Amino acid sequence: MELYGDRGFDATTVADIAARAGLTERTFFRHFADKREVLFAGSAKLEEVMVAAVREAPPSVPAIEAVAAGVAAAATFLTDQEFSRRRQRLIDSNPVLQERELIKGARLGAAFAAALRERGVAEPTASVAAETGMAVFRVAFERWVNGTHSGSLAEMIQEGFSALTTAVVSQTG
Amino acid sequence: MELYGDRGFDATTVADIAARAGLTERTFFRHFADKREVLFAGSAKLEEVMVAAVREAPPSVPAIEAVAAGVAAAATFLTDQEFSRRRQRLIDSNPVLQERELIKGARLGAAFAAALRERGVAEPTASVAAETGMAVFRVAFERWVNGTHSGSLAEMIQEGFSALTTAVVSQTG
Repeated sequence: MELYGDRGFDATTVADIAARAGLTERTFFRHFADKREVLFAGSAKLEEVMVAAVREAPPSVPAIEAVAAGVAAAATFLTDQEFSRRRQRLIDSNPVLQERELIKGARLGAAFAAALRERGVAEPTASVAAETGMAVFRVAFERWVNGTHSGSLAEMIQEGFSALTTAVVSQTG
Repeated sequence: MELYGDRGFDATTVADIAARAGLTERTFFRHFADKREVLFAGSAKLEEVMVAAVREAPPSVPAIEAVAAGVAAAATFLTDQEFSRRRQRLIDSNPVLQERELIKGARLGAAFAAALRERGVAEPTASVAAETGMAVFRVAFERWVNGTHSGSLAEMIQEGFSALTTAVVSQTG
């Protein structure tokens, strides 16, 4: 991550990363498919934790609350604001990384929808609830990494879901 | 559009498109910056129509209803299901086009949030409502172009916002 920040993503080679980490290139490739995967190594685990939280939400809660439990679980995983901020800056600067990040986001949304259908939520409610939860997550994450707001990611997520309720039920005028 | 479908996007040249449309290349470039713009020529107009509808919603309605009015306005613009389906297939098959489509979607979400702030909606409610509306729009549009469901885009959008209310307020168990 440091190397990417110093040199830019494209100019950093696997040899550079392996050397900094005290690994051989061969060992590096045993852990990561390519140099991009270093940035996305946590994504599969994150998805697993988030989807498990949707599954484990009490059966009686509205679909969006099950999704909110899944999104909130991300905050137990994403605790290093400085790391997330640097990672985000890198991704924003590179279209190939942006694409990979978007694909991972789309996959997570689909996994949420599938978990809701398993809970007995019908379509299109399952997809709408899943994508809405992802929208709240993205807004909360952006506020957190942009750092113009104090507060943890958990707080940003909670504020986001409160804002959703406000947006859906309250008058604005 | 026909040419893209027959030959694939990459293999179709501006000369091909101009010839099919009975234009010279010079005339083509007076209307479109490049061959990708042919697919996105309607996007600016669509954004304008959608944002205007958010602005014109009654001041007393909840933020999501103003956004819903904006999303519903898309259905008056997107009426040719076969065209939208072919366009979507093309975009799905080409990462560069996908990226452009995602950028246009992000810009529309930001424009919705700005229109809501003008209506006096505070952050993060404005961003959450805007991104939630975009999420409903994407789910509705996908159901419409996938065509496994009968019904117009307007109906899919209405069902999507009903599903949002269900997801936020109803029990699922």
